[in-house]
Amino acid sequence: MAKTKAAAASRKKAGATGNRPRRPRADQSIGVFDSGVGGLTVLHAMSRSMPRENLIYLGDTARVPYGPKSGETITGYAIETADFFVDRGVKAIVVACNTTTALALDLLRQRYPIPVVGVVEPGARAALAATRNGRIGVIGTEATVASGAYAKELRAVAPEVEIFTRACPLFVPLAEEGWTGNDVARKTVAAYLSSLKKSGIDTLILGCTHYPLLAKAIGDYMGPKVRLVDSAEETAREVKRLLRAQKLQRKTGRGSASFFVTDLADRFTRVGEQFYGSSVSSAVRVVLREG
Amino acid sequence: MAKTKAAAASRKKAGATGNRPRRPRADQSIGVFDSGVGGLTVLHAMSRSMPRENLIYLGDTARVPYGPKSGETITGYAIETADFFVDRGVKAIVVACNTTTALALDLLRQRYPIPVVGVVEPGARAALAATRNGRIGVIGTEATVASGAYAKELRAVAPEVEIFTRACPLFVPLAEEGWTGNDVARKTVAAYLSSLKKSGIDTLILGCTHYPLLAKAIGDYMGPKVRLVDSAEETAREVKRLLRAQKLQRKTGRGSASFFVTDLADRFTRVGEQFYGSSVSSAVRVVLREG
Repeated sequence: MAKTKAAAASRKKAGATGNRPRRPRADQSIGVFDSGVGGLTVLHAMSRSMPRENLIYLGDTARVPYGPKSGETITGYAIETADFFVDRGVKAIVVACNTTTALALDLLRQRYPIPVVGVVEPGARAALAATRNGRIGVIGTEATVASGAYAKELRAVAPEVEIFTRACPLFVPLAEEGWTGNDVARKTVAAYLSSLKKSGIDTLILGCTHYPLLAKAIGDYMGPKVRLVDSAEETAREVKRLLRAQKLQRKTGRGSASFFVTDLADRFTRVGEQFYGSSVSSAVRVVLREG
Repeated sequence: MAKTKAAAASRKKAGATGNRPRRPRADQSIGVFDSGVGGLTVLHAMSRSMPRENLIYLGDTARVPYGPKSGETITGYAIETADFFVDRGVKAIVVACNTTTALALDLLRQRYPIPVVGVVEPGARAALAATRNGRIGVIGTEATVASGAYAKELRAVAPEVEIFTRACPLFVPLAEEGWTGNDVARKTVAAYLSSLKKSGIDTLILGCTHYPLLAKAIGDYMGPKVRLVDSAEETAREVKRLLRAQKLQRKTGRGSASFFVTDLADRFTRVGEQFYGSSVSSAVRVVLREG
């Protein structure tokens, strides 16, 4: 991977001192990352709502999944990935992974002087806008649920909401297997969500970027009175709003998406398509610099 | 982690040149490793059949699962783990992970001058002894099945056997969730194994160390005419045979088991118990040296 001295120096400065480098420019790309294919649902929503933007996606497929790992480990991974983007001169970073957002977003915001958007705030905000009875459910990986990130975000704005959470570890492998509407998917949804259904929630945050693939099975089980909040969609909306506010929108041309992975691309290519909605066959393997 | 210069030098020599260091001694420990908790089924079988041996287990929980990763990545991980054991002066290494055995066993055997036992050969041998009609099924992770390791091993001894394979990616998360006998487990078993059931096999190799936890659900679905081969049990048998043949059995005292992990120990402790059969609460976190 060729790297100019200037880029390395700028990265070092940004990372080490938090000094502000050149102001981000509208013609730069947006870096989007996740532990694997899940964040492609966010990328998909972004490329539909911001068709002029150039998007760089990195899936840390050599170390997927982040869900069962510790905060310390995940924070280290997040810094390595953000450094990768900063070396490439992005104007913003999207942490398209609930686990990483929950555990590392604050640190990334302190460390890098460009906008860093996570998936928790947009989802929480949309849930607060949607709920009528103040009872909100949150489902996600073990790490996301254990972090309490959604509860913290929801309570910061609306201290009185009642929050019901449930970790659903099998939803990620189900989505990756493409089993999103079969018997196993329905039984798994029922097994995880039966208590949430009884809790009287009227809003359910899909707090994992894999879960939009299971939205139909989840919606069928929860019934029409429960509004599902898709954090991928909400995050794309937030990025668009933020670029507009900071006058960083790319105004002309047709946007592109390029894909990087940390392990061989075969599986990413095969599984990723159902998350992105079109082919991700051009994925390139990279080795991240250890933090 | 304290490390003597002598140990480092011996490791370097062994790793770099393949020279034979001091002959392994009967009073030394046995190193057992896996990507996570799965190999604890092998450790469990070993501690029952060899109660005098001291066992060191390493679960590479920061990088689990290996199943969807590439051969190159997994081989690198295997070398780092084997180096960790060799630094501690083990008399043998057990690769208690089908994926790593399939992809890295030959290389480990070339690289280290102590016995290295994998889980594929013992399982394949037991299946050949069990089959009457020469039709053998193999189930495992995507990587294990794609590697063709069991087929190669089976055909090397009995070129005429018919082999039927199926990757079952959801079995690992199911076992870790403790869902081994519920509706979801039964439906998942049926979804993965329906073709194998029709194939007329009389022997089925559980080619993943997680799968013994699902043995009842698998056995119930396949019926009494299909013999299940548990590679964890067969591997313990092979290690015992090998230590006896090389006069490396520990003859006195009561054996122990110590546990190391590469991420925080909480989840290993919580999930591991059902794989090991008793508590693994003393697990210590280590950082592996990069190869």
